[in-house]
Amino acid sequence: MRTQTGKARKPSAAPPTGELALIGSIRRRAAGTTAGSPALRLGIGDDCALLRLGAGEELAVTTDLSLDGRHFRLDWHPPESIGHRALARGLSDLAAMGARPVAAFLSLGLPRVLTGPPARRGTKPWIERFLDGLLALAAAHRTPLAGGDLAESPLAIADIVLTGAVQHNQALLRSGARPGDRLFVTGSLGGAAAALVRLSALAAERPASAAGQPLKISQRLAAKLAPHLYPQPRLAQGLALARRRLATACIDLSDGLSTDLAHLCQESGVAAEVEAAALPIHPAATQQQALHGGEDYELLFAASPSARVPRSIAGVTVTQIGRFVRRRTSRPLVLLLTRSGAQPLEPSGWQHFA
Amino acid sequence: MRTQTGKARKPSAAPPTGELALIGSIRRRAAGTTAGSPALRLGIGDDCALLRLGAGEELAVTTDLSLDGRHFRLDWHPPESIGHRALARGLSDLAAMGARPVAAFLSLGLPRVLTGPPARRGTKPWIERFLDGLLALAAAHRTPLAGGDLAESPLAIADIVLTGAVQHNQALLRSGARPGDRLFVTGSLGGAAAALVRLSALAAERPASAAGQPLKISQRLAAKLAPHLYPQPRLAQGLALARRRLATACIDLSDGLSTDLAHLCQESGVAAEVEAAALPIHPAATQQQALHGGEDYELLFAASPSARVPRSIAGVTVTQIGRFVRRRTSRPLVLLLTRSGAQPLEPSGWQHFA
Repeated sequence: MRTQTGKARKPSAAPPTGELALIGSIRRRAAGTTAGSPALRLGIGDDCALLRLGAGEELAVTTDLSLDGRHFRLDWHPPESIGHRALARGLSDLAAMGARPVAAFLSLGLPRVLTGPPARRGTKPWIERFLDGLLALAAAHRTPLAGGDLAESPLAIADIVLTGAVQHNQALLRSGARPGDRLFVTGSLGGAAAALVRLSALAAERPASAAGQPLKISQRLAAKLAPHLYPQPRLAQGLALARRRLATACIDLSDGLSTDLAHLCQESGVAAEVEAAALPIHPAATQQQALHGGEDYELLFAASPSARVPRSIAGVTVTQIGRFVRRRTSRPLVLLLTRSGAQPLEPSGWQHFA
Repeated sequence: MRTQTGKARKPSAAPPTGELALIGSIRRRAAGTTAGSPALRLGIGDDCALLRLGAGEELAVTTDLSLDGRHFRLDWHPPESIGHRALARGLSDLAAMGARPVAAFLSLGLPRVLTGPPARRGTKPWIERFLDGLLALAAAHRTPLAGGDLAESPLAIADIVLTGAVQHNQALLRSGARPGDRLFVTGSLGGAAAALVRLSALAAERPASAAGQPLKISQRLAAKLAPHLYPQPRLAQGLALARRRLATACIDLSDGLSTDLAHLCQESGVAAEVEAAALPIHPAATQQQALHGGEDYELLFAASPSARVPRSIAGVTVTQIGRFVRRRTSRPLVLLLTRSGAQPLEPSGWQHFA
């Protein structure tokens, strides 16, 4: 954790409370995640963290920026969910490469109100609840928090960096799908989008007096909203696909099937056909949510016709939903095959700066 | 570069202009930095970048968050300077570890006005000028831009991640200084703080009609303000210190001598004495700016009494400014020795959340 601020310096002979105390608190909590991590040689407290890989391993690196109002809402999401989701995005990128997590780094920009004591006594500070969510997921996937940066910010920001290890030439790329390969997906689709619709409805129903406060969400409700609040990155599944060389290409479903499949096709130079009837639609979701919803963090992968793909990996179902075909300029990149015929499946994830 | 946005999705059958076009532009420009980089096996375009280290190397990782209004000001700094400074912070962390750069990652959150065409025709868009500054420094230090993330944001944000390689057990840590070691610094001190004072004065002198616009800075003035606008990370110097095993501990001067020396002493469990008369004060700076100013990005390091420390490394002077002594609880952590006697040198870098 750096303490650098860049400008607006003012002399201060006061003891280093404030930022240093917060860094100290994060450092102590992070220490619980770094114990017994052979790849992490040096964690928080120096100019850099130091990682050591095994022989024949490559390092996978991904960064994911989460902003209030865009990737989460302080007035909708429990702090634990914001921490969980920020880390889950990065872990899911590692899963899509078939990498095992080595270390996470967290750059945090927070308004002062979120780092101080809570409004009501006896309740946990926001920052501690955020770390609860993030570190619980980190512990579940043995991912040490090895560093980061911290700044006061008018906008709540969490940039997560994930590093992971993968054996040379075993990484699952987006570019390896070939015509004839089958198209698979883990788990079910659309659950996150359906839960988000429900969460936004709850927010809209609140009395005006409660606006701006985080929604109060019971445990029972949180379980129903889990596909959105607490998505599970498919690390064991990605690792199995890589080690058993089952997949020729892979991507995680962050932007939605229609968008991410288009990315996979673009990078592989192929086209795809999706069987609508084969889609593993989440019980709470519509077909539209399954096709375009995003944030399910399932893995979408290609497998050669001869690969023996199991029906489930580490407790998560695997479903064939289509196949890859030769790309022709006169044809859509992705076709959706339904009872009433074939129709183009256009990417409909949201675009920044459009 | 990810295109993920998380929420507020809306169907869009329009061609992927906007974010994808911007990502495409960054990807093309980044490609110029990745050519001939043996450590970077896979850059922008997949779920993760892939790095491959040499045998016996460790990976150093650092993240630095830069925010408008805190680490830079859109209405003061030329876009090229903002890009340069964001990357320089991370490169300086690598220098302080004695690491050579492997790859940089950039998470960028920008208001829409900065990514669109410029207000006046014939001038460059802000984002292109930002990348000019960042990529020029990256090229100077052979640092490929290997990935990142992008989001529209009401606040301008640049989180930089730097990865570097260092031989096993050669990394320069903060924790290795011992009583009797001598204290050295590269280059001169206080120049960045003095230039910042001048920059803020220029901003204050502007007519009200020009408020909010970036300052117009002539080439001649930019040269004078260079210690603040375009600080030079000391990578060659850090690498030489590590390879020749000249330093027992090292830190970069980002928060100012008084603060960073206190960090070094804390991590090493020692105290230090600084000779005021020995300080290499920048010609434009005061002693106070040299002691507390920060952002000079020089290296502060410890060397054993027997080490043969040269007077300059790769064209940059090296000056002994003091020594390390045993730590005693009754004594200040750092003493400043002047003609009129010894006085405590208190850390006076600015603290967030204080």
